[in-house]
Amino acid sequence: MKYTEMSPAQRQAEYAAVKADYEKQKALGLSLNMARGKPGKDQLDMVTEMCNILVEPADFVSDGIESRNYGECAGLPAAKRLFADLLGCKAEQCFVGGNASLQLMYDAISKAYTHGLKNSPTPWSKLDKVKWICPVPGYDRHFKVSQSFGMEMIAVPMTADGPDMDRVEELIKDPAVKGMWNVPKYSNPEGVVYSDETVARLAAMKPAAPDFMLMWDNAYCIHEFDAEFVPFADILSLCAMSGNADMPYEFASTSKVTFPGAGVGVMAASEENIAYLTKLINIQTIGFDKVNQLRHVKYLQDKEHTLALMKRHAEILRPKFHAVLNALDEQIAPLGIARWKRPVGGYFVSLDAMPGTAKRTLALCKEAGVTMTGAGATFPYGIDPNDSNIRIAPTLPPVAELEQAIAVFCNCLKLSALEKLGI
Amino acid sequence: MKYTEMSPAQRQAEYAAVKADYEKQKALGLSLNMARGKPGKDQLDMVTEMCNILVEPADFVSDGIESRNYGECAGLPAAKRLFADLLGCKAEQCFVGGNASLQLMYDAISKAYTHGLKNSPTPWSKLDKVKWICPVPGYDRHFKVSQSFGMEMIAVPMTADGPDMDRVEELIKDPAVKGMWNVPKYSNPEGVVYSDETVARLAAMKPAAPDFMLMWDNAYCIHEFDAEFVPFADILSLCAMSGNADMPYEFASTSKVTFPGAGVGVMAASEENIAYLTKLINIQTIGFDKVNQLRHVKYLQDKEHTLALMKRHAEILRPKFHAVLNALDEQIAPLGIARWKRPVGGYFVSLDAMPGTAKRTLALCKEAGVTMTGAGATFPYGIDPNDSNIRIAPTLPPVAELEQAIAVFCNCLKLSALEKLGI
Repeated sequence: MKYTEMSPAQRQAEYAAVKADYEKQKALGLSLNMARGKPGKDQLDMVTEMCNILVEPADFVSDGIESRNYGECAGLPAAKRLFADLLGCKAEQCFVGGNASLQLMYDAISKAYTHGLKNSPTPWSKLDKVKWICPVPGYDRHFKVSQSFGMEMIAVPMTADGPDMDRVEELIKDPAVKGMWNVPKYSNPEGVVYSDETVARLAAMKPAAPDFMLMWDNAYCIHEFDAEFVPFADILSLCAMSGNADMPYEFASTSKVTFPGAGVGVMAASEENIAYLTKLINIQTIGFDKVNQLRHVKYLQDKEHTLALMKRHAEILRPKFHAVLNALDEQIAPLGIARWKRPVGGYFVSLDAMPGTAKRTLALCKEAGVTMTGAGATFPYGIDPNDSNIRIAPTLPPVAELEQAIAVFCNCLKLSALEKLGI
Repeated sequence: MKYTEMSPAQRQAEYAAVKADYEKQKALGLSLNMARGKPGKDQLDMVTEMCNILVEPADFVSDGIESRNYGECAGLPAAKRLFADLLGCKAEQCFVGGNASLQLMYDAISKAYTHGLKNSPTPWSKLDKVKWICPVPGYDRHFKVSQSFGMEMIAVPMTADGPDMDRVEELIKDPAVKGMWNVPKYSNPEGVVYSDETVARLAAMKPAAPDFMLMWDNAYCIHEFDAEFVPFADILSLCAMSGNADMPYEFASTSKVTFPGAGVGVMAASEENIAYLTKLINIQTIGFDKVNQLRHVKYLQDKEHTLALMKRHAEILRPKFHAVLNALDEQIAPLGIARWKRPVGGYFVSLDAMPGTAKRTLALCKEAGVTMTGAGATFPYGIDPNDSNIRIAPTLPPVAELEQAIAVFCNCLKLSALEKLGI
């Protein structure tokens, strides 16, 4: 029976029952974490063999390049070819960096501020205001980069097809709007895949700003856990076809393919943008870790071989997501106090609790030893106007712990909803 | 006999003889490189065993931290302890990053521009002018960072004890002077070791700028090739004793201890500076490659063990430097056309040719297939006012190639000197 349809007396009885169960859970002194999209230990162990794939000195040479010595700022050609194969772009469009694509995103934006981009009339640090489009709910670390540079973040609601494009097409008429965050496949946190129409409209945009950055964080481009691989369009060629060759900056990494702490990140953009940024980045560093790039090339080999590895990751991830979704279906669905999507890829489950109950729900979780991503984290400035969205990250804990954690979470959702409805 | 003391006829005879020999060398169609401070292949092979020091999943855990997963933005505690041991500072003062200390230097300066440093009245990007002290001759990549940010670089001559401190103490009275480059031990390119007095005067400086950056690139802190390890003072405590705790930013890396392309870099500064910068860098990245940090911790172990490894590097490097210095002693010294120092550590030999002959000498080298660091590279904006300083990097080529290259170089020095004196 829906909580909203319960009589005050029924709600009181329900509250008492749930509270009693919640107190029992608290008494267990749990310490469980569903806060971040971290792969689990079994995933790390599965790929650890990669670390010993280079042994003899000769193994460290790739296309005649000595990976152990200085040079090749834009990355090993073989690493560029691997990422071009995965992303469907050209090797010449790839800049292969260090262990974090986030750093490549940050550095590209940082250089827009300190030096200006290829098509910038002036470095952004000289501008009074820089505005940025932020689809919500979104990735907290994207928003933190924008906030750190003092951008005015403009929230645009996500739909089942991606960001609300009517709103986006209106906003880009403002020359102060310099860019937009996107996670086009299995968006963080909802797991939404941008529709072909949304992608086409984004690629065809004509922003007033000549140096508009279409940030295309393809973090989950090959990260299905409950479906066959879903092909995706090459945003670089789509934009080029619309005369927007320099607009997109695509990013990806092996953080959730090999190691989150020791993977390889890539930035893909027009050859002109890559040439321009490589010149600037070459002042910052002689080059990134080519030995680790070569380890990845030898271990992942190509797209087909990498997709096979992702199926093995999926075997580990699927039961974790099912544990979360099944618990929500059984425990919460009948009560009509929350909505959530059923992602088939990515690293999160996004849940919208009854407005005004997200913070309280997570506070109750914390009391019972269950840590979740902070309420509001999925919105610019960390403020969810409805205090409703909650990001669930089920990938790190083993299934048994996860089932405990989600059981606590369901009780906390119930308690906060009942408190809100009045008991 | 000195060229200056030769009669025109003697010079003509000498020129003809040297030219004939030079033409023979050209005919060999050599392709030799003494341009960059790159370790040689034998050095890389010597340390390659490090790559397979981590094998079992358990090997990747350090102080209870899973190095393969996200986290620890400022680096593994064990890696901080290792660098603290090498530099003589505290582990809490160390930020251990990726494979390049240059990137840590660049990022610290970049954040001064975009966000301001801990003691900055305003981000530097809002200032009309930023000036920077550049000891000359110096490291071209340092100067390129300053130039890239549009700084006004002020050259200060190096003495046998380090930079001319009277000049430096005068310059820092200008609040627009925001920092200074230093390579305190085995300076690039001269191999000068700052004297205790110079270091003490630098640590005690009272710059007008509250956010003055004493950039302390300790790139060659343990890099003796022809001497026992020379202890050095901890610049962080020296500055702190003078009330300048936040002034120094020290940098070091294992680029010339393990791998130039895949080593580990560190930034050491006051705990307050490290806390301030870590907060900013954590927006840029979740963390650097901790697996590679752990490889280094397990392989290098501690200062004593690392110094033992450096002695093995010295065995490889010493004959290369001797080959260069012996050739100069025999071929050039009697002619009085150039001066050079005899470094016992670092990666370069710095030579001052007869004023106005450096460019011509290197052009002649190029003609004969010998690539050297461009003339002027050791000065701000790439301009050597005397067209005299030449940086010789003898570390990459095998000794046999090196002897060929230096023989060519000596002939080019002679030819350009004779041309200058008139033939």
